Amino acid sequence: MSDRKLALGIDYGTNSVRALVVDCATGEELGTSVSEFKSGDHGVILDAKDPNLARQHPRDHVSGFFECVEGALAEATIDPSDIVGIGVDTTGSSPMPVDERGVPLGFQERFQENPHALTWLWKDHTAYSEAGEITELARQRGEPYLAKCGGTYSSEWFWSKILHCARVAPEVFDAAHSWVECQDCIPAWLAGLPNAASIPRGICAAGHKAMFHESWGGLPSASFLKGLDPRLGALRGHLYTKTGEAGQSIGGLDAEIAAKARLKAGTPISVGAMDAHLGAVGSGVKPGTLVKIMGTSTCDIMVGGPGTPDIPGVCGIVPGSVIPGMMGIEAGQSAVGDLFNWCVGKLGHTSHDELGREASKHRPGQSGLLALDWNNGNRTVLVDPLLTGLIVGQTLQTSQTEIYRALIEATAFGSRKIIERIEEHGVKVEEVVVCGGIAEKSPLTMQVYADILNRPIKTSRSAQTCALGAAIAGSVAGGAHPDFLTAIAAMTGVKDTVYRPDPDAVGTYDRLYALYLDLHDAFGNVSQRPMGGIMKELIKIRDEARQ
Amino acid sequence: MSDRKLALGIDYGTNSVRALVVDCATGEELGTSVSEFKSGDHGVILDAKDPNLARQHPRDHVSGFFECVEGALAEATIDPSDIVGIGVDTTGSSPMPVDERGVPLGFQERFQENPHALTWLWKDHTAYSEAGEITELARQRGEPYLAKCGGTYSSEWFWSKILHCARVAPEVFDAAHSWVECQDCIPAWLAGLPNAASIPRGICAAGHKAMFHESWGGLPSASFLKGLDPRLGALRGHLYTKTGEAGQSIGGLDAEIAAKARLKAGTPISVGAMDAHLGAVGSGVKPGTLVKIMGTSTCDIMVGGPGTPDIPGVCGIVPGSVIPGMMGIEAGQSAVGDLFNWCVGKLGHTSHDELGREASKHRPGQSGLLALDWNNGNRTVLVDPLLTGLIVGQTLQTSQTEIYRALIEATAFGSRKIIERIEEHGVKVEEVVVCGGIAEKSPLTMQVYADILNRPIKTSRSAQTCALGAAIAGSVAGGAHPDFLTAIAAMTGVKDTVYRPDPDAVGTYDRLYALYLDLHDAFGNVSQRPMGGIMKELIKIRDEARQ
Repeated sequence: MSDRKLALGIDYGTNSVRALVVDCATGEELGTSVSEFKSGDHGVILDAKDPNLARQHPRDHVSGFFECVEGALAEATIDPSDIVGIGVDTTGSSPMPVDERGVPLGFQERFQENPHALTWLWKDHTAYSEAGEITELARQRGEPYLAKCGGTYSSEWFWSKILHCARVAPEVFDAAHSWVECQDCIPAWLAGLPNAASIPRGICAAGHKAMFHESWGGLPSASFLKGLDPRLGALRGHLYTKTGEAGQSIGGLDAEIAAKARLKAGTPISVGAMDAHLGAVGSGVKPGTLVKIMGTSTCDIMVGGPGTPDIPGVCGIVPGSVIPGMMGIEAGQSAVGDLFNWCVGKLGHTSHDELGREASKHRPGQSGLLALDWNNGNRTVLVDPLLTGLIVGQTLQTSQTEIYRALIEATAFGSRKIIERIEEHGVKVEEVVVCGGIAEKSPLTMQVYADILNRPIKTSRSAQTCALGAAIAGSVAGGAHPDFLTAIAAMTGVKDTVYRPDPDAVGTYDRLYALYLDLHDAFGNVSQRPMGGIMKELIKIRDEARQ
Repeated sequence: MSDRKLALGIDYGTNSVRALVVDCATGEELGTSVSEFKSGDHGVILDAKDPNLARQHPRDHVSGFFECVEGALAEATIDPSDIVGIGVDTTGSSPMPVDERGVPLGFQERFQENPHALTWLWKDHTAYSEAGEITELARQRGEPYLAKCGGTYSSEWFWSKILHCARVAPEVFDAAHSWVECQDCIPAWLAGLPNAASIPRGICAAGHKAMFHESWGGLPSASFLKGLDPRLGALRGHLYTKTGEAGQSIGGLDAEIAAKARLKAGTPISVGAMDAHLGAVGSGVKPGTLVKIMGTSTCDIMVGGPGTPDIPGVCGIVPGSVIPGMMGIEAGQSAVGDLFNWCVGKLGHTSHDELGREASKHRPGQSGLLALDWNNGNRTVLVDPLLTGLIVGQTLQTSQTEIYRALIEATAFGSRKIIERIEEHGVKVEEVVVCGGIAEKSPLTMQVYADILNRPIKTSRSAQTCALGAAIAGSVAGGAHPDFLTAIAAMTGVKDTVYRPDPDAVGTYDRLYALYLDLHDAFGNVSQRPMGGIMKELIKIRDEARQ
């Protein structure tokens, strides 16, 4: 054992799990390894008859842990006893049924091939009708629960999935003592906690997804849950009444697991959190920094002091959801990479590389196109899933490449609207840091964002910010740092390459953004705006750009 | 020579010329033949350096005539002396320079490879900047000339092309004694007219394309033309001061041509007209019948009595342009087949067959999409080329097939708006007859039109309505019928297959049309309309359609 302090971050994704060994003093990434999940289709258990079904097998969580930790330790060539803490993030809301001991039902012989007994992956949409019932009942009863999740409960979330299970697989529901989010289940397993009742629940997933909020006494009332299904009312007593925050230790690493993984028994384990939130941590979130986690959708995450105001349309303002003791501010766009994928896969059949290469040659405004980025609704600031996409400005020469670029621009305009809304309410955005696949792969997108936001766009130094964020949680839980902000200052950073706004592009995009706002407010039902000049102004901008 | 009366129609298109021998008593099509033009790319002379250039060679007009007539006569096995009259239609505006004898300059040794001395095909857009100058000068001077062509002069038309020629090929311009539309040049050649001054000019092309109107004394004033270029002012004296109408005989077939073509010398030749107008005639246009000539764009043609009112936004109300003695009413949509081609060729790379087959399986409203059909501006009723396309309602699942169908629907909504505008001004549309390629090839489009217009859609019996219309003009010129309406009643008809509206579809499309009108009026700058409910209503219609 040396004086060196290391942390281990474990990042559970949809198809794989990654382990990352990090130096707590510098953030240096010493070793990493990915284990692909073995079950189903790249780790996702599907149902040929139902495209909405998506599950994970908890045995993949266990075997994947040992495999990726082994790989990371081999690469790092460190003394495992230097690891002072372990943090875990997972997808969410990804709940699973557990028995009284806290063991997932999927490990039981009788249930191991029953998809309803497994982990209900975040993107499982089987519970869409239950989500509708929950929304409807909360509205009917005038409950406050939907205020924190934008007015509509999602089929992706905790209660929808449990209610659906009670209906389609009562044998599983009846066998379950409790239901636990993946982000909480894995730390509890690592810590060898003895039963379901003892599993600490992280505020990160509890906040929106389970409608947990102190202002209404924690989880939704038993009366409300009974209104959905009497069995849900009964389940409430086996769930939880308080929540923890990442960075708090839930206990030390179980001896048996430690021996098998060649880690040190008793190493502190942090309360779990969801991937986007710890991704923001790994990207260096701090007051004034907005982290954009850009993937199929985008999460915008900031932190603020206790005086952080309510911001209309920014629904995710939850104490401690990102950094303990600070208000987490979470906004987002429902389709970003998914929108680009739509253009590539559904409109034509080309590649991102091909369209991106061509679109990079275009000047701002030259296509004459303007789009709204609402193909999957608008999460922030309109908080309205019943919105759809719009493209205007097409001619007979309009190409797929031009549409591709217009969609990139649309998401950047949507991002600008979010930032302006946050700043209008007194939270200053001093820095924008982007992480995620798009930041790595699409310089075009980064430059468009710099030009449209008229701000330098930095990219996270780490290519695995979620695992790094998990390691930071571990470093705090293990006492290597007194708090998250200190750990973040020591362990995160941005790349040297900064995308800087081009003044000419900024001018053109300011004009286009004014038109975007007209469409946004008119179609988003914020206010009436005159539409009669939009096509002509787009033509004018186009003709100027082409000269 | 028998008692039988036949007529010969010659239809000059972009790539070929067709001859059709028709029985004047019944409209029976006895023989037809097509001659592909030999010059350039399928008859179109191009310039690799300039995509706007498109010319035809007049020698193709001559050789094509003999070839297709020979083929048609061979198929018809008739006595050529039974042919009582010959009619000609061509594309337009397709002017060409001619010498003092009226012979196209392209026949002169020194000019035969000079593209500027050839026929400037309708779709030649080299003169776009001259078109802008003409529009600008007419506006500056407050001239009335643009009133009949929607406020903007086109690069496709007579004066733009001549002015451009004067600038880029002064040697051609200087060698030209006059300029003649293709529709007038070919009948004059057939009749063996002795010089340029004697060539009768048809009102059909003169009306809009050359800005000829009796209310301002024929062609635009010498002062106006001099303002564009002094040489244009001088040319005016070699042009014309009056116009003729199809069905009037300009003289008999030249003996030499007759001998070579094995036709009867002296057979009456009709004044020429443009293809769409005679296409309407061949489709059976008469008071109360709206003929839609559907191709890359759509022409809507009706005829009315002398009391036909001005109809705002329907700019082509010209006496005698379709049928002598009646007001021709011409409306249109700038992109129809071109819009579908755009979806097939620019968005993805599929086929009309594939998209059409899939789109036929969709129910009205189920895509949630709504589009404006303005990718090439709006010809009627907004008369505004500075408008562009719009599509709203996209999700991440929206397919190219759904967009394809939405574009078909958009053109049908645009068509409904035109019909409603015409009827609002007292011209009753009692029947809709469609001709052109789309009518033959796309039952989907025909059914969508029936459902959206809520009227039976009939299709023209003849598959070559332009050539049939030309033959009808010949039959009138030759005295087989006293007038067009008598000839049309005898010689045209519709197919047995009638596309009838489906009541369920009509109901859904009425709801979508109300939304289309909101978009139409808001983006067309007619009036402000609330946009805030459009996406939600589309989702509602979509969800109902999917149940």
